[in-house]
Amino acid sequence: MSERFFLAAAPKDGQAVLVNDEARHLSRVLRAKVGDEVRVFDGSGLEWTARVITIGRDEVTLAVGEPLPAQTATGPRLTLAVALPKGDRQKWLVEKLTELGTARLVPLATHRGVAEATPSAVGRLQRGVIEACKQCGRNTLMEIAPPATLETLSALLPSDAIRLLAHPGGRAFDEVVRPDAHDIVAAVGPEGGFTDEEIASAERGGFQRVSLGPHILRIETAAIAIAARSLPHCSP
Amino acid sequence: MSERFFLAAAPKDGQAVLVNDEARHLSRVLRAKVGDEVRVFDGSGLEWTARVITIGRDEVTLAVGEPLPAQTATGPRLTLAVALPKGDRQKWLVEKLTELGTARLVPLATHRGVAEATPSAVGRLQRGVIEACKQCGRNTLMEIAPPATLETLSALLPSDAIRLLAHPGGRAFDEVVRPDAHDIVAAVGPEGGFTDEEIASAERGGFQRVSLGPHILRIETAAIAIAARSLPHCSP
Repeated sequence: MSERFFLAAAPKDGQAVLVNDEARHLSRVLRAKVGDEVRVFDGSGLEWTARVITIGRDEVTLAVGEPLPAQTATGPRLTLAVALPKGDRQKWLVEKLTELGTARLVPLATHRGVAEATPSAVGRLQRGVIEACKQCGRNTLMEIAPPATLETLSALLPSDAIRLLAHPGGRAFDEVVRPDAHDIVAAVGPEGGFTDEEIASAERGGFQRVSLGPHILRIETAAIAIAARSLPHCSP
Repeated sequence: MSERFFLAAAPKDGQAVLVNDEARHLSRVLRAKVGDEVRVFDGSGLEWTARVITIGRDEVTLAVGEPLPAQTATGPRLTLAVALPKGDRQKWLVEKLTELGTARLVPLATHRGVAEATPSAVGRLQRGVIEACKQCGRNTLMEIAPPATLETLSALLPSDAIRLLAHPGGRAFDEVVRPDAHDIVAAVGPEGGFTDEEIASAERGGFQRVSLGPHILRIETAAIAIAARSLPHCSP
């Protein structure tokens, strides 16, 4: 896969602009010249080949052609609501969920949670999504939704979404999720787990407990495992 | 889960010895005293409660009771043969596979592979397995097998093992692996993928290509996704 660049704004009138890090990476690190060809995507699902027209200090202008054939994948739309882990584990979580096709990550505020979804943390998560998309060939950004609690989360969901709570002692994933599921939301709690009150409240909201094997999984492992169990399929 | 310690040797005559880091962690970091109770496992699948008898410089002697009831989990026995990624990604791979119950990790030598399974690298992987076991409550160590190629790998396998090759354009995982599979081996190639020759040779050896969604997964993501798709189930 050749190098891909992220457009902060969709192409307009056959032109697009790379800015900031994307522009600097192309102009200074890769030392691109006018006329060079690159691939670009804007996170909406489309991808283009483009040609360098002008190279400025922090801005590269591109001539953009017709969009390339869109990726088609079928499978459930997965929302993961996760009590964010700390530090590098947060970065990993985002990289892996992006690669695995998760549609949306919701930072989940919980009683025992440790990492807050501050604006700067959310900014880091969003940059992580873009980096992973560039690398793995994904053209639709994973959405980083505003923080929610288990209760406010329900309001975001279609009424027929399958609601899962990752918790030891639950049923096996495949018993709860049918292969033709089209909307899944799964909540993953903090280290130490959800409180009894949180579990009771979630169950009243239609969440079902699922278990992910016999061991105590770390936050990011549980989330990645659910994403892997919900992988989209390629259409031929 | 209370703190767990790894025994390098099985208990004998009701006693066991913690050595090196395990001993120092208990005696110096946790400042254990004679008579304190801990939990220990030796990687064979058993776990005990034990009581501190003597505390030496790099050695703690324990009185060990009857083993605790063994974990029971059903599901496929998964061997992952992986072209090892570099640096932290290797560490992550081992932590996640251990949590997810993978039975065996085989460092896979491939044409395009970058990280060699030197003895010191294998030592690091083995320490990573122990650390992850302590944390996630797993009592049977994940085996780190000697390095293999796709060809020598076949010799390790029971003849009825399901053989998978993670490769774009393959069939979906659930089409190839039945829920009642009992022995799975999955090969994950290096960045840049397997060569055509490697794929042809593996296919002659009975490997089937499986695809893990529409994106280009990093090595460790592909391996973790396969482990998550093969999760053991808890028995009630």
